[in-house]
Amino acid sequence: MPTKKTTEYRPRNAEATRHRLLTAATAEFSEHGFAGARIDRIAERAGTNKRMIYAYFGDKDQLFEALMERRIAELSKAVRFSAENLSETALARFDYMLANQDVQRLARWRTFERANPTRAERDSYRMRVDALAAAQRAGKVNASIPAVDLFAMVLSLSESWLSAPPALQAASGDALGAKRLAQHRKALVEAVRRITEPR
Amino acid sequence: MPTKKTTEYRPRNAEATRHRLLTAATAEFSEHGFAGARIDRIAERAGTNKRMIYAYFGDKDQLFEALMERRIAELSKAVRFSAENLSETALARFDYMLANQDVQRLARWRTFERANPTRAERDSYRMRVDALAAAQRAGKVNASIPAVDLFAMVLSLSESWLSAPPALQAASGDALGAKRLAQHRKALVEAVRRITEPR
Repeated sequence: MPTKKTTEYRPRNAEATRHRLLTAATAEFSEHGFAGARIDRIAERAGTNKRMIYAYFGDKDQLFEALMERRIAELSKAVRFSAENLSETALARFDYMLANQDVQRLARWRTFERANPTRAERDSYRMRVDALAAAQRAGKVNASIPAVDLFAMVLSLSESWLSAPPALQAASGDALGAKRLAQHRKALVEAVRRITEPR
Repeated sequence: MPTKKTTEYRPRNAEATRHRLLTAATAEFSEHGFAGARIDRIAERAGTNKRMIYAYFGDKDQLFEALMERRIAELSKAVRFSAENLSETALARFDYMLANQDVQRLARWRTFERANPTRAERDSYRMRVDALAAAQRAGKVNASIPAVDLFAMVLSLSESWLSAPPALQAASGDALGAKRLAQHRKALVEAVRRITEPR
């Protein structure tokens, strides 16, 4: 029988374990992709065992879904989406990706493995495309490009340098040097402005 | 001792074997990436043995280099690079990637694995960036974005739909349907025109 003290502490420990498991899962999925990730390695990284993962999250799919939900929540907080100021959104997304390379890898694996999108992912994209279409109807954003394409293009542009072919990055010297990044940030704002401004 | 007839036939057989090996290697690298690709599986796919691969190409690195050279030559032939008409270049690249999904996967693996670029890749990119910079100096292309960024952006835009997050593609219904692709092709031309035209 748990004592009162144990009962009081349990939620905090549970939260800490959950957090530790999600962090370990992020590292594992980021390194090996969904298909290559192994539940026992995630348990080992988190200093716990497989049974705990099943107890907290369910199967591998559900663990991944929980992780994506957390990531999307973090990304949404760090990168404010503004349909009427997509240059700023693109720049914030670039800075976030630069600082969180594991998220970038995770996102690339997702696309690469053509995995089924989670519900949270679908909702997140649909809301943004709808907001963008509304801004187009209001004449605040270039309407000569469909909202879904415009959004896909802004996402692409925000990763155009970080995911450029290694041979192209190499042509610029130090691809992640301060000077190069400063030039690219300016270029990114200009490019997004050009494709989104109504004229 | 080979007879005269055998000697005469050898070059043709050699070319056929070389071709078969490169085709098998493309499939293997496209599926498993560089690190995951296995020489014995490539030999098996080509209906030959490992010794033949070593004899024709050398090690795994050299086989990959030969394959990339062939791919770059094919791509350069199919996608004419025009510094002064990057919309057309982007569109041709989109069509090529759509028709050659193995090349698209191969290119993504390359970026993903952060492999060392081959000499052919470096030269290929550097020539194009230089041509673009010259067109900027001549006032024929928007010079407010550095040539290396502009080029990375055109590459990104040409793949923005094919490599969009699955959740975003799903939001559009049939991502590879004829109507959607026609809309995207138009959008791509418009976007590249907007970022490249001098004004």
